[in-house]
Amino acid sequence: MSTVPMRTVSMSTVLLTGFEPFAGETTNPSWLAVQRAQELWEGPEALDVLELPVEFGRAAEVLNEAIERLRPELVIAVGQAGGRATLALERVAINVDDARIPDNAGASPVDAAIVVGGPAAYFATLPIKAALAALTREGIPAVVSQTAGTFVCNHVFYALMHALAGAAGDEMAAGEPAEGVPGRDHRRGPRGGFVHVPYAPEQAAGTSHPSMTVETMATGLVSIVRTSLTTTTDMALAAGATH
Amino acid sequence: MSTVPMRTVSMSTVLLTGFEPFAGETTNPSWLAVQRAQELWEGPEALDVLELPVEFGRAAEVLNEAIERLRPELVIAVGQAGGRATLALERVAINVDDARIPDNAGASPVDAAIVVGGPAAYFATLPIKAALAALTREGIPAVVSQTAGTFVCNHVFYALMHALAGAAGDEMAAGEPAEGVPGRDHRRGPRGGFVHVPYAPEQAAGTSHPSMTVETMATGLVSIVRTSLTTTTDMALAAGATH
Amino acid sequence: MSTVPMRTVSMSTVLLTGFEPFAGETTNPSWLAVQRAQELWEGPEALDVLELPVEFGRAAEVLNEAIERLRPELVIAVGQAGGRATLALERVAINVDDARIPDNAGASPVDAAIVVGGPAAYFATLPIKAALAALTREGIPAVVSQTAGTFVCNHVFYALMHALAGAAGDEMAAGEPAEGVPGRDHRRGPRGGFVHVPYAPEQAAGTSHPSMTVETMATGLVSIVRTSLTTTTDMALAAGATH
Amino acid sequence: MSTVPMRTVSMSTVLLTGFEPFAGETTNPSWLAVQRAQELWEGPEALDVLELPVEFGRAAEVLNEAIERLRPELVIAVGQAGGRATLALERVAINVDDARIPDNAGASPVDAAIVVGGPAAYFATLPIKAALAALTREGIPAVVSQTAGTFVCNHVFYALMHALAGAAGDEMAAGEPAEGVPGRDHRRGPRGGFVHVPYAPEQAAGTSHPSMTVETMATGLVSIVRTSLTTTTDMALAAGATH
Repeated sequence: MSTVPMRTVSMSTVLLTGFEPFAGETTNPSWLAVQRAQELWEGPEALDVLELPVEFGRAAEVLNEAIERLRPELVIAVGQAGGRATLALERVAINVDDARIPDNAGASPVDAAIVVGGPAAYFATLPIKAALAALTREGIPAVVSQTAGTFVCNHVFYALMHALAGAAGDEMAAGEPAEGVPGRDHRRGPRGGFVHVPYAPEQAAGTSHPSMTVETMATGLVSIVRTSLTTTTDMALAAGATH
Repeated sequence: MSTVPMRTVSMSTVLLTGFEPFAGETTNPSWLAVQRAQELWEGPEALDVLELPVEFGRAAEVLNEAIERLRPELVIAVGQAGGRATLALERVAINVDDARIPDNAGASPVDAAIVVGGPAAYFATLPIKAALAALTREGIPAVVSQTAGTFVCNHVFYALMHALAGAAGDEMAAGEPAEGVPGRDHRRGPRGGFVHVPYAPEQAAGTSHPSMTVETMATGLVSIVRTSLTTTTDMALAAGATH
Repeated sequence: MSTVPMRTVSMSTVLLTGFEPFAGETTNPSWLAVQRAQELWEGPEALDVLELPVEFGRAAEVLNEAIERLRPELVIAVGQAGGRATLALERVAINVDDARIPDNAGASPVDAAIVVGGPAAYFATLPIKAALAALTREGIPAVVSQTAGTFVCNHVFYALMHALAGAAGDEMAAGEPAEGVPGRDHRRGPRGGFVHVPYAPEQAAGTSHPSMTVETMATGLVSIVRTSLTTTTDMALAAGATH
Repeated sequence: MSTVPMRTVSMSTVLLTGFEPFAGETTNPSWLAVQRAQELWEGPEALDVLELPVEFGRAAEVLNEAIERLRPELVIAVGQAGGRATLALERVAINVDDARIPDNAGASPVDAAIVVGGPAAYFATLPIKAALAALTREGIPAVVSQTAGTFVCNHVFYALMHALAGAAGDEMAAGEPAEGVPGRDHRRGPRGGFVHVPYAPEQAAGTSHPSMTVETMATGLVSIVRTSLTTTTDMALAAGATH
């Protein structure tokens, strides 16, 4: 999917992933949005996109293969959160699969570890607060979310952060930087995170579900990428939840 | 606000109204959307737009004056429903004001009749089910709503239907056509209704509220106008609420 | 039902109705709550209870027969609103059936008038604001609701108000008293209204739906009956909706 | 379990904690519910209760002191989740404070680690799925929740699991048992978790918020304690979230 056949070590790469459709849908706005973000992207970094299967295990394998191949400095996985109303900057990935519906290969793991022996969770290493501030300034609805669920989205998010933690060659990404500020110091190693998107309008038509145009999603993703590339220390902006 | 200075009896007119901002907002997407719908409109009917004040009493006066002047065959009032996720085709206007917040003139009526001696309610005389079907086909999120609230939106909706019922010179619009099908026979007299729109994305930014682009709203309004002009008997499509 | 076989003209009667189970449920908390309210009731008025079928048409017939037989001065119909979180004092009944699911006899009317030639709506003639104030004082969660939906609950509510308007021998109940204060002057004729109740805890178990114990519902219903019997002019308490 | 009426070192102790009121409330149903659960408890284990301050830092200190003193085999912290509709069995505590409102001492930490150098998260070591199944069987509304927020509730939950992980003298509680089944093997060491409760009815009165009686909460807590004491390996019951 890269349109840049050769790459030098000095060329920065950003990888955006979306998912194939699932749960009876015929499209997945996450994949439409990352493709549109690629069109909107003006560099100088290369921006690659990748469509992941909605399958426990295989989604992570496809992602890991791309990370090894592309060596991106920034990876943002994007997934559909039908029923949510805004972009959601996910804060944390947890080491458990618990599926209420089967994935696209028919698997429904319950309370299975994603990485046996892995940490209970990873925090995103994106500057989610700075990204939230930028999106709000630009008029794009977004929130920080405290859970990415326990389905394939969280699975990919956890696998991504596990891969990046390994790539960093240290424990930087594992929840707790030296300064004691979770996810707020991103000076070393590739960074990654996860963004949930609402239904596209076409999916919500005929229902009372909230939706967002793919154009708005893509504009928001470009903003998140830009903020992530230019922010070394995240802002201290309250965006938590009381419960 | 009409751009057509002279008008002949054979020229059909459609009137769309929006509201000025209220409740601390600096824009009102209903007014932005009706203006954009006017730009998108391709006729042959004339489409006029009108901005109404968010004031009990005066909003209805401004609307009534425009109806008398323009003699539209179709009037759709549009208002902001912050927190709702889709276009809402309102089914019924009730004869009561009950304001939890002051209007833009500082008035907060509680349990006051809109028209003293008027009927308890009017049904919209738009083909709301046919409009819902068309919007769904076009991928624009919409629902039929069973309540327009008790603030200025419902006030204008009730006043509109009261005016059109009088203009029809009969009791057609008063809730109960001869065939016993509420709101489904619209052969005589001017027709009217109300559409609620969500927040625009810029208003929802920084919150978890759902939103819709003004372009989607406007495209939806054009669809509703077109369906209303071309449908004489509404579809029998279930779109009620169990409670 | 009544345990008082004979009745004199001087004996005031209150009638509470609940519904049989529907939509796959095995109980209906509305019927449990009115029975428990009867046990809690301390008079001096007689309090009768009646279980209505969840059937368009027949529910109204059963109710009307009881009203003719009992000549109650106050009738409160109660129904289940699965998914709502509080008691809901319904403000208005509208003259339309629009069923998304079949009733217990398999009927799914769409956009049918409840009473052909009847007014578009009736306002409850309960003092809903005084009742809300009393419930709040007593720590029982309640709201005023602007729509009772378009299923059998609204059907019964409309039929009830239509019957009471006829029984009143005038147009008092038809939405608009002489003073121009909808539903706030209840000096003449029998009064009526509708209260929606949430799921009971047993129904909500295993889901994320809100619920309320039958004891709380029944205590609330007794409070509403008491307030309705002792309030002639309703309070002017804001409890509307902006949309 | 011991049947010896005098307390010896072999006598099992259960500790339930609630919180003091916060955010302008005058009561906290979590504290009312744990006190009522203590009354309902029939042993043979001792059941102690403790009221925690709603203060970052100090709440954890008070809890830790009690754990050191009582050496409980089971600790369940309980907190108020205003706006939620059911009991919520929390799955995971994350190592971050992010306060949108000040705690009762005026502190509003943003993106601060709870334990500097601690793991990103701990899974509850309660059998949350078996507890969910038991509650559902008993007609008590409950769900598994994937986030306890980022306020004092999550703070106490994280501190609790950190303390128990240390007390266990091994890495058992740290998210990932040897079998690779997060939170499902609880054979060794004291166990702990967190349960969120809705508003009590008195708090929700006058609003549209869901609520639950303290009696229902307390009955549910007793059930959770009993299930936790008698379940060594949790059930594989799907209770995740797609996002």
